[in-house]
Amino acid sequence: MHSIDFYREEFLTYLNSEIETKEPKNLYAPITYILGLGGKRLRPVLTLMSTDIFNGSYKDAFNAALAVEVFHNFSLVHDDIMDAAPLRRGKITVHEKWDINTGILSGDAMLIKAYQLFENYPPQVFRSLAELFSETALKVCEGQQYDIDFESREDVTIPEYLKMIEYKTAVLIAAALKMGAVVANASDEEKDAIYSFGLNLGLAFQLQDDYLDAFGNPDTFGKQVGGDIIENKKTFLYLKALEMGSEKQRKELIDLYSIEPKNPIEKINTIKEIFIKSGSAEITKKEILRYSKNAFQVLESLSISQQKKELLRFFGESLMVREV
Amino acid sequence: MHSIDFYREEFLTYLNSEIETKEPKNLYAPITYILGLGGKRLRPVLTLMSTDIFNGSYKDAFNAALAVEVFHNFSLVHDDIMDAAPLRRGKITVHEKWDINTGILSGDAMLIKAYQLFENYPPQVFRSLAELFSETALKVCEGQQYDIDFESREDVTIPEYLKMIEYKTAVLIAAALKMGAVVANASDEEKDAIYSFGLNLGLAFQLQDDYLDAFGNPDTFGKQVGGDIIENKKTFLYLKALEMGSEKQRKELIDLYSIEPKNPIEKINTIKEIFIKSGSAEITKKEILRYSKNAFQVLESLSISQQKKELLRFFGESLMVREV
Repeated sequence: MHSIDFYREEFLTYLNSEIETKEPKNLYAPITYILGLGGKRLRPVLTLMSTDIFNGSYKDAFNAALAVEVFHNFSLVHDDIMDAAPLRRGKITVHEKWDINTGILSGDAMLIKAYQLFENYPPQVFRSLAELFSETALKVCEGQQYDIDFESREDVTIPEYLKMIEYKTAVLIAAALKMGAVVANASDEEKDAIYSFGLNLGLAFQLQDDYLDAFGNPDTFGKQVGGDIIENKKTFLYLKALEMGSEKQRKELIDLYSIEPKNPIEKINTIKEIFIKSGSAEITKKEILRYSKNAFQVLESLSISQQKKELLRFFGESLMVREV
Repeated sequence: MHSIDFYREEFLTYLNSEIETKEPKNLYAPITYILGLGGKRLRPVLTLMSTDIFNGSYKDAFNAALAVEVFHNFSLVHDDIMDAAPLRRGKITVHEKWDINTGILSGDAMLIKAYQLFENYPPQVFRSLAELFSETALKVCEGQQYDIDFESREDVTIPEYLKMIEYKTAVLIAAALKMGAVVANASDEEKDAIYSFGLNLGLAFQLQDDYLDAFGNPDTFGKQVGGDIIENKKTFLYLKALEMGSEKQRKELIDLYSIEPKNPIEKINTIKEIFIKSGSAEITKKEILRYSKNAFQVLESLSISQQKKELLRFFGESLMVREV
């Protein structure tokens, strides 16, 4: 086993060796651009690590890891168009740097490219990877659609919200880990367990993102604290506050979520207060802890060495105390 | 063997049995809509027919045929966004009926769905189909990019143009046929031959489309005659006229291709005259014939029954005398 930094470096070396801007340049340059924008490379690192954990060699997982990263970046390119986002990782987005049509078409090519990377594996592994990939990718699309639908719905339930973040975020983390297990020819039980570990970790991760968006340290959170509140985004914190709050708190919350003040400081502070006083902030923290514990509990069921469990636990914990 | 109409009916029955608008509705309803818009179902019919030709059973090819049709419709949805097209098959386009974001996301889901359809085949066939599909799909994206690039380029060569229409149109027709051969477990030689037949037929088909756009019968062509000229589209006719025309004809052509008159009748007529007088129209007809002949010549090399060759020839000919 190796350190997370080691896997990241190895992945980046592989990524750089594989990226080439072929003709037509206008199709492939945006792909090189978005893949070169950085980021923590969380998902591909998970794939490499998972292969080692199940007694494979991480080098065999490079193509699966790259497929996961290419797919993730495909979804960023298309999502950024849908969100009209000007920036991604602090840099100009693909559809802003080129145009929307380029973003659509280069994204499409990335999705196809991701599938092509599985061709480096023998037929049975190819099939397992491609099937898992399709199932995951379709859920990511469904999650994105639910996320869009929720913007204009006033009756989103908490189970619906949890399904949305599971599909939009958690399944890809789970699949990244499972792909590593597939490459290592792990048993079905092991594949299911590592998937479940990833799914729970992914849910904890996204709920924490919701929490930090309101209560994170502005110096270290990376994104604008209060961003979700400014955008009237119906996060777990918001939905739970609606559920748990008094009639007065509910009304105030709904009222505040219908306006977009020029100076949002007061709105942010009032809403954060409601999140706290309604008990939503506390429940959210508990839920994050619950999903994290679920993840680590699944780990215990795996018959892998303590050292490997430690690494996964360390990875999970470093994810949960992340500052971005 | 059966008639083309038989294969089309069989395909439509299968299509209708497979289409269901799952949740989230906003993701899947546009897919049901575009797949239900009609069209000649040319590509899936080719897949079914090809399986029968190579002694398989066309029913085994339903999923491969559907994958081809779903992919084709995916490309229509995304292309229509890029072209800002209001209508498709005389009906309102997906991004106009819903919105651009819906068009992007539903298109993405269709691309993934197409891959999933191959999961109905055993691992080796799955792999062959998925590999052929990825290679084809990527070329279609590249062809679309070249097409976009050519709009703003003044130095497009005829080989470049031919590569563009090969990628954008012909490879999918070729792949549709080859997939049928893959399902039927045809030999490599047979798979290559039917692919080559489809590629040549596809090129003839697209060149004919260019030709009919200018010289087709307005009563039967289906699209607006002169549409390419109005849009200053650099078709084979245009590029060949530039190559073969006198200095005066070249200059007039380039001048006319820089304007967009409100009443384009005169422009269309002048340009058609240049297409004829420069010899471009004649050469284009010859090229269409040459690619058609190439296609039928490849057919001869196949050791299939005369009856089967007749069916493919009939299909090819009915394609070439098509009125839409």
